[in-house]
Amino acid sequence: MEKAFKNQIKTNYPFLGNGKLLLAVSGGVDSVVLAHLCHRAKLEFSIAHCNFNLRGDESDEDESFVVDLADSLEVEVFTQSFDTLSYAEENGISVQMAARDLRYQWFEELCASLHFDYILTGHHANDNLETFLINLVRGTGPEGLTGIKRENKKVIRPILDFTRDEIESFARENHFKWREDSSNHSDKYMRNRIRHQIVPVLQELNPQLLESFARTQSHLRESMDLVEDYISLLYPKIVEKSTYGYQLDIEFLKKVPNPRQVLYQLLKSFGFTEWNDVYELLNAQSGKMVYSEDFRLIRDRDKLLLTERKKPSGEKEYHLEESENYVMIPNLGTLHICEVEKMAAFSKNCIYVPKQKLQYPLTVRKWKKGDYFYPFGMNGKKKLSRFFKDEKFSLPEKENTWLLFSGEDLVWVINHRADNRFAVEDKETQILRISTNVPC
Amino acid sequence: MEKAFKNQIKTNYPFLGNGKLLLAVSGGVDSVVLAHLCHRAKLEFSIAHCNFNLRGDESDEDESFVVDLADSLEVEVFTQSFDTLSYAEENGISVQMAARDLRYQWFEELCASLHFDYILTGHHANDNLETFLINLVRGTGPEGLTGIKRENKKVIRPILDFTRDEIESFARENHFKWREDSSNHSDKYMRNRIRHQIVPVLQELNPQLLESFARTQSHLRESMDLVEDYISLLYPKIVEKSTYGYQLDIEFLKKVPNPRQVLYQLLKSFGFTEWNDVYELLNAQSGKMVYSEDFRLIRDRDKLLLTERKKPSGEKEYHLEESENYVMIPNLGTLHICEVEKMAAFSKNCIYVPKQKLQYPLTVRKWKKGDYFYPFGMNGKKKLSRFFKDEKFSLPEKENTWLLFSGEDLVWVINHRADNRFAVEDKETQILRISTNVPC
Repeated sequence: MEKAFKNQIKTNYPFLGNGKLLLAVSGGVDSVVLAHLCHRAKLEFSIAHCNFNLRGDESDEDESFVVDLADSLEVEVFTQSFDTLSYAEENGISVQMAARDLRYQWFEELCASLHFDYILTGHHANDNLETFLINLVRGTGPEGLTGIKRENKKVIRPILDFTRDEIESFARENHFKWREDSSNHSDKYMRNRIRHQIVPVLQELNPQLLESFARTQSHLRESMDLVEDYISLLYPKIVEKSTYGYQLDIEFLKKVPNPRQVLYQLLKSFGFTEWNDVYELLNAQSGKMVYSEDFRLIRDRDKLLLTERKKPSGEKEYHLEESENYVMIPNLGTLHICEVEKMAAFSKNCIYVPKQKLQYPLTVRKWKKGDYFYPFGMNGKKKLSRFFKDEKFSLPEKENTWLLFSGEDLVWVINHRADNRFAVEDKETQILRISTNVPC
Repeated sequence: MEKAFKNQIKTNYPFLGNGKLLLAVSGGVDSVVLAHLCHRAKLEFSIAHCNFNLRGDESDEDESFVVDLADSLEVEVFTQSFDTLSYAEENGISVQMAARDLRYQWFEELCASLHFDYILTGHHANDNLETFLINLVRGTGPEGLTGIKRENKKVIRPILDFTRDEIESFARENHFKWREDSSNHSDKYMRNRIRHQIVPVLQELNPQLLESFARTQSHLRESMDLVEDYISLLYPKIVEKSTYGYQLDIEFLKKVPNPRQVLYQLLKSFGFTEWNDVYELLNAQSGKMVYSEDFRLIRDRDKLLLTERKKPSGEKEYHLEESENYVMIPNLGTLHICEVEKMAAFSKNCIYVPKQKLQYPLTVRKWKKGDYFYPFGMNGKKKLSRFFKDEKFSLPEKENTWLLFSGEDLVWVINHRADNRFAVEDKETQILRISTNVPC
């Protein structure tokens, strides 16, 4: 195995010879063998050990073991103690997920502060098969079947081609010491049942199981790479950045051979779970929408709009006293108000109102059901919902439109339409200019 | 289950109500239940039973059982006896493969002659999981993981969503009789070991295994559909039909993000096994090639040429006696020879030679190593291999180029270049026109 490892480094990872490496060592046989192999290959490395405090004294003994191993190999060692259970609870995730998060966060910190070039881990071929089977049992998207990557940004897994048997035999032949994780020997966890009850039967059926599985998985990964390539090709044709998120072109989407699958690929990272509802938006009426925890997908005429879900803070109101001449409004900018001699250029961003008609404080808020106004240039009253509809506002546009009120009366659909009731009729009165872009 | 089945038919296969159906019934619980369900749903169907003669008397008893079942349901029944073992041996395939081939061949025949619209089979959810695991154990491309299709041309599998447990319970509740395949109870076959040793453990780990597996597999299938779509999109940009097969544009191929994977997808149905060699052709010298059993992939300058492997018949020679005025040559057409008064229009498809210089019989054959000639319009002798190279002939072009010989002397690289030695110098001699397109 030593020779194969050195060849592996020479062929696939020659850059490791010049890099500053951080080895993740748990004390288990995999990472211990990795440490010995790196030492024998004369790579320059330090060791990092996470103490997750999940198995009482045993955890602390693992830590001492790794420190001793580092001493014997004469390399630097970093250890860090984590309260994994609390972290898992606080974040509502499994203990395994918590441990993984904590580990990689800490590694990243070490890399950043101490300038490590690569992180090496002792994952091997059996890990890959086990993870595949675990995900298969639990149910997964195709990504869950493609396995641990050989290289992923800074993380390199140089013994991913070796099997657990090879690694253990090598450790025994060389009289290495390592720590057995006592939880390995119970059937308590799914991984252990798969390791002890499933994999041996599959290996009886095909003694070359791990090799042929590696090929199967690499084919699968390659296919998934092609899916990514395809979606990258379609992305700019379908998706456009819009003011409040993204908009997807339904017409184009419907022209590709498998619109639903393409939609799934485009949206899979936004946390939607009700995919059938998502797909139905392709044929739904304008206004229909589907929610994920953080996002919203809205059918808006011939587009799908993807926006973040409105936070409750959106309900806020802003007030402007008579003595003030501006108020800052989120996602809008500053609303300026000032007295002017006479009306000048009109624009969407500016209205003129007679001061004596205003009732202070003025209020700026979003649309509520029942709001109405008397649109400038029209006769009579109009519901705001009707105005939005006639003007073809999308839902995010409606939600992001601010309204200026004097008492209960709408003065201005800001940047869109003034109200007739506040039109300047007598030029002798005090005229105020209210504007979103021209300071006083 | 009966209600669920009827709903299934109504929702997903309403067309079955108007079709003439052929049910594949082995006598096992799955197909027996399918037959009863179709009967209760008042579908119009006939039964087909294959006797593969693999289990002696048991096979014949299965046949009688199915005939009785058909009688009791008052439907037509077709039975066919196969010598499966011989077929497998003759075709060098496994007994399972042989049985499948024979079955579907016969079904196709029945459909063609008796005008059945659809073939229904009793595959269920466990079949899909078992097949997935079998392919996983043996090693497979991603196609081997995507499972049995719900619909595939004429074949419909209306109970694919039901589990074996559901089917067996339904059969017991209704006191149906069925035949147990004695080979089901041994661990002799991989399927049985997976069924009895693997699946139960996985189901303990996740009681909803079959449902979640169905979703996993459907995601996988959808991703594979996208791969197909992507390749269909790239195909016309990379592949072009050429005279002797297909040519692939290497330059374009190298511009896509994953050229090797795309190449794999484009060529996967041509039987190549040495994929690394195939991939290396992308950077190889002109002339390098890789073989599959029936095809050949050749690097030819900035193209990859895919052609069928040359059959030994390509070595054949054709002769033309003095008395004959034409000879038919495969892949070329007819070579005509006739006397003319004088030389007329010259073209690539025609030469003029002085009759007295020819030595009969004339010979038409392909290129051999060492062939040379005196190219018309040049001074001196040239090796034919050199001529091909200078003219940038691809290997398939070389192999498909016919040569006309008089004795040992090359007269004409047919349709490409005449030989100086046979040029007409004296206009008084007898002139022959030899042509591939103008009959005499």
